[in-house]
Amino acid sequence: MLRSADLHRVTRMRRAEVPAGPRKPMIVELINTGSELMVGRVLNTHQQWLCRQLADAGYCVSRQVAVPDAAECIQVALKEALCRADLVIVTGGLGPTSDDVTRDSVARLLGLPLREDPELLRQIELFFTERGRPIPAAARGEAMVPLNAVVLKNRNGTAAGLALEVPAGRFRHTEKSSWLILLPGPPRELRPMFTEFALPWIREKLPSSAFVCRTFRTCGLGESQVQARVGHRLADLVVKGLSVGYCARPGEVDVRLAFTGADAEKNVAEGEALVRHALGEHVYAADDVALEGLIVGRLTDLQKTVAIAESCTGGCISDRITNVPGASAVFRGAFITYSNLLKEKCLGVKAETLRVHGAVSEPVVREMAAGALGRGESDFAIAVTGIAGPGGGTDEKPAGTVFIALATRSQVLAWRMINPWDRRTFKEVTTQQALNILRLAISAA
Amino acid sequence: MLRSADLHRVTRMRRAEVPAGPRKPMIVELINTGSELMVGRVLNTHQQWLCRQLADAGYCVSRQVAVPDAAECIQVALKEALCRADLVIVTGGLGPTSDDVTRDSVARLLGLPLREDPELLRQIELFFTERGRPIPAAARGEAMVPLNAVVLKNRNGTAAGLALEVPAGRFRHTEKSSWLILLPGPPRELRPMFTEFALPWIREKLPSSAFVCRTFRTCGLGESQVQARVGHRLADLVVKGLSVGYCARPGEVDVRLAFTGADAEKNVAEGEALVRHALGEHVYAADDVALEGLIVGRLTDLQKTVAIAESCTGGCISDRITNVPGASAVFRGAFITYSNLLKEKCLGVKAETLRVHGAVSEPVVREMAAGALGRGESDFAIAVTGIAGPGGGTDEKPAGTVFIALATRSQVLAWRMINPWDRRTFKEVTTQQALNILRLAISAA
Repeated sequence: MLRSADLHRVTRMRRAEVPAGPRKPMIVELINTGSELMVGRVLNTHQQWLCRQLADAGYCVSRQVAVPDAAECIQVALKEALCRADLVIVTGGLGPTSDDVTRDSVARLLGLPLREDPELLRQIELFFTERGRPIPAAARGEAMVPLNAVVLKNRNGTAAGLALEVPAGRFRHTEKSSWLILLPGPPRELRPMFTEFALPWIREKLPSSAFVCRTFRTCGLGESQVQARVGHRLADLVVKGLSVGYCARPGEVDVRLAFTGADAEKNVAEGEALVRHALGEHVYAADDVALEGLIVGRLTDLQKTVAIAESCTGGCISDRITNVPGASAVFRGAFITYSNLLKEKCLGVKAETLRVHGAVSEPVVREMAAGALGRGESDFAIAVTGIAGPGGGTDEKPAGTVFIALATRSQVLAWRMINPWDRRTFKEVTTQQALNILRLAISAA
Repeated sequence: MLRSADLHRVTRMRRAEVPAGPRKPMIVELINTGSELMVGRVLNTHQQWLCRQLADAGYCVSRQVAVPDAAECIQVALKEALCRADLVIVTGGLGPTSDDVTRDSVARLLGLPLREDPELLRQIELFFTERGRPIPAAARGEAMVPLNAVVLKNRNGTAAGLALEVPAGRFRHTEKSSWLILLPGPPRELRPMFTEFALPWIREKLPSSAFVCRTFRTCGLGESQVQARVGHRLADLVVKGLSVGYCARPGEVDVRLAFTGADAEKNVAEGEALVRHALGEHVYAADDVALEGLIVGRLTDLQKTVAIAESCTGGCISDRITNVPGASAVFRGAFITYSNLLKEKCLGVKAETLRVHGAVSEPVVREMAAGALGRGESDFAIAVTGIAGPGGGTDEKPAGTVFIALATRSQVLAWRMINPWDRRTFKEVTTQQALNILRLAISAA
């Protein structure tokens, strides 16, 4: 994860290193290998993630290619890319099974012999012994490394990444070497490896122009509303070269400001001030901070606790909160009362309230929040009840209807929302709304 | 979602149409245009969707490329593809705004003049008048069509698709023409257009070979273990042309079998029998069925209910179950007892058990499961307690330690696992293990 502190530090470093004046834009290409991609069995999340990480670091990918796990296809795509690019990143095919052919294909294309890396072999052996599992014969093949390749450590698996210099003149007619990075396919192995080892290596070999990119995360407004509030205010900076992007996800909208050039930091800071002024408390964070992280951090500082009562979100709010390390210090727990039975037994919602108003109603959500606060012995409680759909709606309460309540030691507040989306999006949007209500209540505390 | 019934139907139809005997495999390439793809601000869902639709119809995409919205980039990628492929599909850039350059770029590359299509213009005018909106000047440009192109109707927007024949010898040295299809970027326009108009056109111009692809989803074994059990058994079929792929995700591994040719269905069926025999109850489904869907479906059939007690997974199991429409008929609710307080109050775990054995222990998980069963008045209950980490581990119980219990009306069973992953992966793997234990118990019921 890229933190803004790092970004500023890195940017300053880059500015000092990079000579002034225009330079030829760097050419970066991405190759994703995987037959499962070609038959549409998985979504290529590597493209988005890597393109974004690279763009945020000042490297814009100019072409991405996906090919099957076949040596010839990988070699053709790689050769084409090396004829053009300063940097080529290849994902997938470094594991132990028979369809993992990237390492061999690359070594053969570059004419490099493979040798066993004793340190890597030791790490692979350790990985299995630590887990009390025998070492599969195939796993030893993962210790084979092309001559002169730099090994990128895999903290979450056995397939190491590789970084190689491809000498000038080998594929393209320039005086500069190209650089090649191979990353393993599983996202939980690829992502930390890229951030910790590959990106620093890229920055060392291919310093980028001064570039600052910051993303402001907002809640509670739609994409058009966000643009209507900030677009015209940023117009002068856009003329100077500021790039502005909007990105909507369930329940939130990002505003991204980027600038390349000598005054990058100053221009983005001016844009930030305008965005924060225009959007006020709708901006909950910059860059990769998540709502749940803010909430757990702030509760920890205050030494306060929270309990949750969920019906239609089915555990999604609680799941988000417990993704944060250290959540156990502030999170008492959640009551996922999907049935009226548990609303009564676990939260003390009155049978009469359920009968008169129905499970999806303001009186019920207020009793749920009060029940969670009392039974969880917490300082804050948030409760949600609604109709996720597709079935279950009525004219008065269509599918998508949600009631959210916030309970503190002194009061219970309630809101009614309409989130007319598909079931999963409904859960995500409602979760975001509930977390945002909790964030604002805790910020005010 | 692909159902096996559909797959068989399609396969049979193809088999009847396609002449026997070997033929050269068709080369299909996909080009996605969009600068937003290159900076990683959106996920490329077109790739998966189109690759899958094409594969299921017997056309395997051998290369996918993404390039920015720039005429030169689109032309270079298209020229490369037309030098190799029988069929090239390009997405995006057909709309009315300044960054929509695909139509012009293609016409210029192929040397075709653009002419206004009167019928298309009439449809575009109708689109706006039906909605009571004035016709933007830029929208008229969408009626410009390269000479001899076939117009593919857009039921959900104004940007028509286009289908073109590229004569033999123009880009590649064969006696056959290539075929080119341009589709608009928005998924809700692209998808119906592809299904209703583009795919029938492809089938007419390029009849495909018989192709069958099935994915078997497994739980409880690692990727190397799965391959060790099935790889050698499939060897004879691989010699005949069966393609075998493995794909690992947190807590599960897919085995994908695909075959192109006259005996596709028979060979994949033989492969399936071998996979199912070798992996037994580890195979939980074929194709796109998820564990939670199986569980809710089976419980609904049995008219049985489930309740859940979660500690370390923090609501993740409950979130998965409630993603399934209709879950409310079988899911009583969940007790997310992140604190000892709630373990005692909500589930009736004894203070003594917590004191003597600790919250992460077999006796506690058994009492949690029994408590969830009793208080949820359910037929099945699953309980989980563990150390998600990164903190909280000890020598005896390192971070990653998990206890899972299953309670039924007649017994409580417990398991101990070690899931030494990062916090999120830990939650996902543990959730998968718990759902798998529940699946097996329900299957046996």
